[in-house]
Amino acid sequence: MTITHPRAAIILAAGQGTRMKSPLPKVLHPVGHRAMLDHAIDAAEALGCERIVVVVGSHSPEVRAHVVKRLGEDAIAVQDPPLGTGHAVRAAEAVLGDFVGQVVVTYGDVPLLKAADIEPVFQNHDGVTVIGFEARDPGAYGRLVMDGDALTAITEAKEASEQVLAITACNSGVMAAPVGLLFSLLAEVTNENAKGEYYLTDVVELARKRGAPTRAVFAGEDQVMGVNAQGELAQAEALFQKVQRETFLAAGVTMPAPETVHFAWDTEIGAGTTIEPFVIFGPGAKIAERVRIRGFSHIEGATVAPGAEVGPYARLRPGAALAEDVKIGNFVEVKNVAMAKGAKANHLSYLGDGSVGAGANIGAGTIFCNYDGFNKAKTVVGEGAFVGSNSALVAPVTIGAGAIVGSGSVIVEDVPADALSLARGRQVNKDGAGAVFREKAAAIKAAKKKA
Amino acid sequence: MTITHPRAAIILAAGQGTRMKSPLPKVLHPVGHRAMLDHAIDAAEALGCERIVVVVGSHSPEVRAHVVKRLGEDAIAVQDPPLGTGHAVRAAEAVLGDFVGQVVVTYGDVPLLKAADIEPVFQNHDGVTVIGFEARDPGAYGRLVMDGDALTAITEAKEASEQVLAITACNSGVMAAPVGLLFSLLAEVTNENAKGEYYLTDVVELARKRGAPTRAVFAGEDQVMGVNAQGELAQAEALFQKVQRETFLAAGVTMPAPETVHFAWDTEIGAGTTIEPFVIFGPGAKIAERVRIRGFSHIEGATVAPGAEVGPYARLRPGAALAEDVKIGNFVEVKNVAMAKGAKANHLSYLGDGSVGAGANIGAGTIFCNYDGFNKAKTVVGEGAFVGSNSALVAPVTIGAGAIVGSGSVIVEDVPADALSLARGRQVNKDGAGAVFREKAAAIKAAKKKA
Amino acid sequence: MTITHPRAAIILAAGQGTRMKSPLPKVLHPVGHRAMLDHAIDAAEALGCERIVVVVGSHSPEVRAHVVKRLGEDAIAVQDPPLGTGHAVRAAEAVLGDFVGQVVVTYGDVPLLKAADIEPVFQNHDGVTVIGFEARDPGAYGRLVMDGDALTAITEAKEASEQVLAITACNSGVMAAPVGLLFSLLAEVTNENAKGEYYLTDVVELARKRGAPTRAVFAGEDQVMGVNAQGELAQAEALFQKVQRETFLAAGVTMPAPETVHFAWDTEIGAGTTIEPFVIFGPGAKIAERVRIRGFSHIEGATVAPGAEVGPYARLRPGAALAEDVKIGNFVEVKNVAMAKGAKANHLSYLGDGSVGAGANIGAGTIFCNYDGFNKAKTVVGEGAFVGSNSALVAPVTIGAGAIVGSGSVIVEDVPADALSLARGRQVNKDGAGAVFREKAAAIKAAKKKA
Repeated sequence: MTITHPRAAIILAAGQGTRMKSPLPKVLHPVGHRAMLDHAIDAAEALGCERIVVVVGSHSPEVRAHVVKRLGEDAIAVQDPPLGTGHAVRAAEAVLGDFVGQVVVTYGDVPLLKAADIEPVFQNHDGVTVIGFEARDPGAYGRLVMDGDALTAITEAKEASEQVLAITACNSGVMAAPVGLLFSLLAEVTNENAKGEYYLTDVVELARKRGAPTRAVFAGEDQVMGVNAQGELAQAEALFQKVQRETFLAAGVTMPAPETVHFAWDTEIGAGTTIEPFVIFGPGAKIAERVRIRGFSHIEGATVAPGAEVGPYARLRPGAALAEDVKIGNFVEVKNVAMAKGAKANHLSYLGDGSVGAGANIGAGTIFCNYDGFNKAKTVVGEGAFVGSNSALVAPVTIGAGAIVGSGSVIVEDVPADALSLARGRQVNKDGAGAVFREKAAAIKAAKKKA
Repeated sequence: MTITHPRAAIILAAGQGTRMKSPLPKVLHPVGHRAMLDHAIDAAEALGCERIVVVVGSHSPEVRAHVVKRLGEDAIAVQDPPLGTGHAVRAAEAVLGDFVGQVVVTYGDVPLLKAADIEPVFQNHDGVTVIGFEARDPGAYGRLVMDGDALTAITEAKEASEQVLAITACNSGVMAAPVGLLFSLLAEVTNENAKGEYYLTDVVELARKRGAPTRAVFAGEDQVMGVNAQGELAQAEALFQKVQRETFLAAGVTMPAPETVHFAWDTEIGAGTTIEPFVIFGPGAKIAERVRIRGFSHIEGATVAPGAEVGPYARLRPGAALAEDVKIGNFVEVKNVAMAKGAKANHLSYLGDGSVGAGANIGAGTIFCNYDGFNKAKTVVGEGAFVGSNSALVAPVTIGAGAIVGSGSVIVEDVPADALSLARGRQVNKDGAGAVFREKAAAIKAAKKKA
Repeated sequence: MTITHPRAAIILAAGQGTRMKSPLPKVLHPVGHRAMLDHAIDAAEALGCERIVVVVGSHSPEVRAHVVKRLGEDAIAVQDPPLGTGHAVRAAEAVLGDFVGQVVVTYGDVPLLKAADIEPVFQNHDGVTVIGFEARDPGAYGRLVMDGDALTAITEAKEASEQVLAITACNSGVMAAPVGLLFSLLAEVTNENAKGEYYLTDVVELARKRGAPTRAVFAGEDQVMGVNAQGELAQAEALFQKVQRETFLAAGVTMPAPETVHFAWDTEIGAGTTIEPFVIFGPGAKIAERVRIRGFSHIEGATVAPGAEVGPYARLRPGAALAEDVKIGNFVEVKNVAMAKGAKANHLSYLGDGSVGAGANIGAGTIFCNYDGFNKAKTVVGEGAFVGSNSALVAPVTIGAGAIVGSGSVIVEDVPADALSLARGRQVNKDGAGAVFREKAAAIKAAKKKA
């Protein structure tokens, strides 16, 4: 699609979000492991907006910092004190400076609204367009009084006649207009109402008075839902997950219990892969085709190649890179380790910082000791090496290709290729000493009981 | 609220519960990790009942023992044989002795009925009050024939006219009356009916005949649900969990998938805490604000202070006490250990019986060896100590403040503060021996295959 | 029930299943951990069919191999190219050879249809009987035009009058007839239709023309659902699980959250057993009565005797055989190990290939080192033995009855009964060396930061 008129977005994110009852600012709460505000910015970027301004309150320095990190200082407008949505949009006027084109106003707490939902608002190049939705239960929403596709009024529920209350087309609050028109209309908005606030919605009536075309386009009610409380956040998350699940099923992913699989916003999974029940994907998971992710696995920041098998109870953390046919089994944690083709770590291990060669076998209970309390170091296990169970590999250390480490060893020095390395105590059996110990321990127990 | 008339509760718990098909007596089955009978006792206590009598059957000594443990022998009335609800209540008469005041009859298998639901029955000081409910599907329930708030009859479904069957107000079975009135009415109840049983319900008609006021107050259908089969127990649990989830969301707890979090009756969680999907709380969990509980965690009898991070796959057992900013990571079990501020155990460890000082780091794969088959002993890790990975600390043992334990050590004696302790075998690399071993092992494998 | 007429089944499994978008052939996708095709074969076997023929396509050698493995080469008929359901059934004619009796045509992608649902089709010994269902949303399904229990026509939706479209009785595609009649009718079916295919359905009209009785019997819509896409597979799985959950609840299994427990097709569980939330059963799990399976457990191919307790986070794999009162705790994996009465492995262990005697205690972090990269060997732990924490038992090895293994030992030789065995390094404490190490490490860290 060619964008003929330059676009900008003003994202309102200055609300206090007190109903969340959380120290985290509302718009930074995540949906699909991504801050709601970032979902709004994503949509603006996908729309091709050349300017994005986020209106923040002075009460939430974390929101400001979050925006600056992603978009830079130029993207910040501050609304202080909060005097309504119209007032919030005006806070962005100076920041937009000499921008010429169309501006859409969106919200940092409306996480499910996608670029494709918003796109139609830009068709009206001379007037004001709002996004409406058909409400299942219109209740207190402002009603859109339509005449064909022309919007003749937005009427607040408490001021609406019975006839208008019967309208189910409601106002989402998202609105677009040419930048000059928008701010000249906003300059006329007054706060002569019960709350003493400046409402963005008033722009529609003012535009009509000037004879500018006012329209509404429609999106789904789920897409425009706003989040104001924890229960609504959970609801938005559920809607987000539902779409993800349907998308992956349609793409050929097998999931016996899709409702028990939780995805992040950027999860990628190939066709013919099976995801068993109870799996959590954090951000950054890229799973190829023909992979098997077994139950109770937790995967974030990891890449998994075709034919690999992961879990049950596997935890892949950022930097885990599994090549073809790798197996990661139960109670195994992998962080920042590249596992080459066919390598295995099947049981109760921690592999952190390093690499494991093709076909190498990491025995049960193996620990990569990558941290000394201050510094991290790497463990390199060569191709075809075999690390016996319950071994500790103290990094930095290299196990050569084809080398064997005896079970229960603490490896502190490099092991040459094809060598056998043992680092453990010699076994001493003391005949009868077990029975003696048992007698003593039983006596102590009996004495304790008496006492 | 001031209680003007003394109160007592008779809790019927003598049913056999054969439809549960379980060796555990029905009323001891838990909802929210608490026996249904205890929920009923909780409600009676919260109502300020000065006497609580539980009517038990002689077939379930476990129920008797359970009640005696909580309320003492004085709380026990035995019904034997079971001859109906009216007969069951009469079994409590002698136990109540010279109690004067109002008595409410409740049920050990109605776990969701709260004190607040029952409270209104005590407003009628001179007559009989039953708790009714509006049934979604009245079916076989007894119908409450009302005249204003006066109850004119309780009609069993099979004896009801079509007109009465259309009534959706139904009888929950819960009933209150002054003690003298109740027992004098019960003395008149006969067993001249199809089942040959004495029905508590008959009291209402008898009271009306005497001119005593009979009333009904109403509770929700979910609140009065009785449990008679495993499916109904699961349903009661689901209703219980739904309320818990809504309560915690409203209190500012962030849960992306609240339907996957299971609470106990006494779980406490502070605002601003996040609970990821798939978390189970057993009894006795007290989680502060701003905590992060990651997925697949299992927590019971543990306290967690602000800023702590737990999981994924963390198991906190009774006596785990996590101070501020403590981190417990994946596949880590903590039982009866106090972790001071900022202490960490991130991977694959068992910490049982002891304490860990502020800022101490417990390496991956560490085991507190707290049990010798007979006795348990304590492990003390000092402030700022660093326990290397895969170490075994054989209790009783103390690791001094600032001490370092080398990876893979078996520590059997105390380590002084700031000391370095090693307890592991020396590493020996045998060049080429890995290749030799591999050849031999491959030959054995080949021979086995042939055989 | 006595089967008076010999029975055969033709199972159609030649579809490409392209809408699944999976490299695995559609009919091999599992429901309840069993290939859909096997569910269809199970039903045919349960019906007493003496011949079962599976019609496969030449595009899916895995399907052919799967059938040959279970039923032998005689069960295979190949349809190539695919020219419709009627054509597919004809492919089975030669394979059935001189079979005389009744034939039912079923489908490899209809996994929930049970023998009891199909049984009634065999009552019509002289004509054609189809299985119908009452559709919630008849949409594009073929309508069954009935006259009493006689089927007068099957009308495709697109050719149906408004009156016929109003019929909700629809065609499942399952059909039975005497073998001679079926194939003589099929010989008359033409492909003169839009798709140029031979439809099995046409047999009904042809039979009526001959005066053979045509009937319909009815099954539930859920039972006859066909699976063509991943979303439908997930739906079939959900229906399967729902039935399993209700069945186990009715049988006296306690499940606080049955919707979070996932069963295999052959799971067995005794009354009075409790299954906590989030449990996955793979195939071959046999759980006795009065067992407690705690949350996050994963069980397949394992038997568990009364009084045992498993989990949370326990993984039982094939060959795990737990006797009475055994305890398997968190992060413990058991594979091919028999645990005798009262044996315990409570924490972070891998027990693979071997046996554990009655009352033996396997300490936290114990590993059975059963694999040397080529061969597997056994570990035998005797009755009443105590294996200290973090030990590695290098198989083949025997720990005698009553023997004690010290914590952190690597056991490579047998330990006699009642002996005490230690195999670990001697502890050396270096005073002040911890502080020195810390200083150096901190300096390195600081240097790195500068660099």
